Amino acid sequence: MLSKYNEYLNDLKIRINNKLEEYIPLVYPEELYKAIRYSVLDSGKRLRAILCIESCKVFNGTEELAMPLACGIEILHAQSLIHDDLPCMDNDDYRRGKLSCHKQFGEAIAVLAGDAMIPLAFEIFIKHTSDKIELYKKAKILQNFFITAGGQALVGGQVVDVINEGVQVSPETLNYIHSNKTGALYRFALSSGAILADANENEIDVITSFADILGLAFQISDDILDITGSRENLGKTPGKDLIQNKNTYPAIYGINYSINELDRLCNMSINLLKDNKINSEILIELVNFIAKRVA
Amino acid sequence: MLSKYNEYLNDLKIRINNKLEEYIPLVYPEELYKAIRYSVLDSGKRLRAILCIESCKVFNGTEELAMPLACGIEILHAQSLIHDDLPCMDNDDYRRGKLSCHKQFGEAIAVLAGDAMIPLAFEIFIKHTSDKIELYKKAKILQNFFITAGGQALVGGQVVDVINEGVQVSPETLNYIHSNKTGALYRFALSSGAILADANENEIDVITSFADILGLAFQISDDILDITGSRENLGKTPGKDLIQNKNTYPAIYGINYSINELDRLCNMSINLLKDNKINSEILIELVNFIAKRVA
Repeated sequence: MLSKYNEYLNDLKIRINNKLEEYIPLVYPEELYKAIRYSVLDSGKRLRAILCIESCKVFNGTEELAMPLACGIEILHAQSLIHDDLPCMDNDDYRRGKLSCHKQFGEAIAVLAGDAMIPLAFEIFIKHTSDKIELYKKAKILQNFFITAGGQALVGGQVVDVINEGVQVSPETLNYIHSNKTGALYRFALSSGAILADANENEIDVITSFADILGLAFQISDDILDITGSRENLGKTPGKDLIQNKNTYPAIYGINYSINELDRLCNMSINLLKDNKINSEILIELVNFIAKRVA
Repeated sequence: MLSKYNEYLNDLKIRINNKLEEYIPLVYPEELYKAIRYSVLDSGKRLRAILCIESCKVFNGTEELAMPLACGIEILHAQSLIHDDLPCMDNDDYRRGKLSCHKQFGEAIAVLAGDAMIPLAFEIFIKHTSDKIELYKKAKILQNFFITAGGQALVGGQVVDVINEGVQVSPETLNYIHSNKTGALYRFALSSGAILADANENEIDVITSFADILGLAFQISDDILDITGSRENLGKTPGKDLIQNKNTYPAIYGINYSINELDRLCNMSINLLKDNKINSEILIELVNFIAKRVA
């Protein structure tokens, strides 16, 4: 990451990684927890966790308050990557710069590690979030978490992506894939961070709109990087979208339009924060990070 | 099922199936919900759901109160079967008398349907259980549900089963596999039914011990049926445990010992209820059903 916020973001990432390490001890059956730890710890940008924490902080909550939820979100994200990488889906041998989970531990353990990580994500949130937070608020966040993880969001987006592989989809369908497969977890991370901090309805609406724009921008930057990136800066095999005839933004709209659209969305998200007097230099920094990924 | 309770249990099964149908509408993306509905609706003995409901009723709760949880338990159970049947695990082409989910819908959709069913099970419980139940009690049940679904129970048992395929395990390891892969969901169904009904600590302890014995008895009966059953009465391919060198009760203790042990456990579970003045003719009937499966 970039600029003067580099150190803060790096330190925050280390604190998130330390908490994940603490929340996921290597217990029996070790083969399972080795696979989970391999897929969750020490790698990943922690973007979603950081967004959750910063959303909580910008509405006067604390890092400590949002940390268990932020870690749960990262676990759910890592879960979706393990299953996406399986031979029956994207069949990717590399993830985050190392062998994907099923290449390292075998397919059965990869499926089961993913299965265990879904309830684990929820459990960590409910078990470790401060008792000072009212139960009705935790229940509301949990319900959103369930929906985000399920067929009406994350899994739904992946299903529509998988069944349309090799078929050129309409812009509406591409939008459905992106806003569910990627957008849903951004939306959940930012909105639930705000709910934890007791943000009001209007503030939650604004941060949710910000999340929608940011999630789409991130997905576009990912799609562009699949074309222009290397395995080193991507951490996974580049060019796979093209080979697999994946429905991506550049495939439908062209690479130049995609780059311009990424730029436009990043500017729009920053203006949305400014117009609503949500002052977070870190959130703006994260937008800039996404904008500059493809530069 | 048998005897004069036949009609009651059949009607209850129909009511459970109707609720599952209601809770899982065929919505977009249809390919996903078709696979979920195919795997959950219209088939299965509903033993776990019935146990949850009867446990609630025996402690003066109602069928209505336990129904959403009972349905969530059936969804989680069906989820574990979908993933167990995958080629990378048990590779079973048949389940509940029809093609297994991945044979019908393909592996990718089978993996994703299972993934969506985990949060769906939790969501149905929290969304549909009566508002009259205090939130702290729902939160306690949810936490147990998360643990039951995860690496310290259901998934942990399956992992130890998978990694020991073809290796003769110790009686302790076999016990771990059974009490987690099968026992955990019985334990959760019966104990959480009791918690919903406001049973006291001692009552919850007794019904949990009953669940442990019953879960083991059911697994032994399943293992015996794999040897002695036909595809018709089994609903899945018989003889697979033997071919796959699965660790089963008959494989370790022999078939005669297993039949005797099944009988002993069923008697023990009935005596446990009687000794503690838990009067449920239906629970006793269900024990008898398990005892007589192999007859």
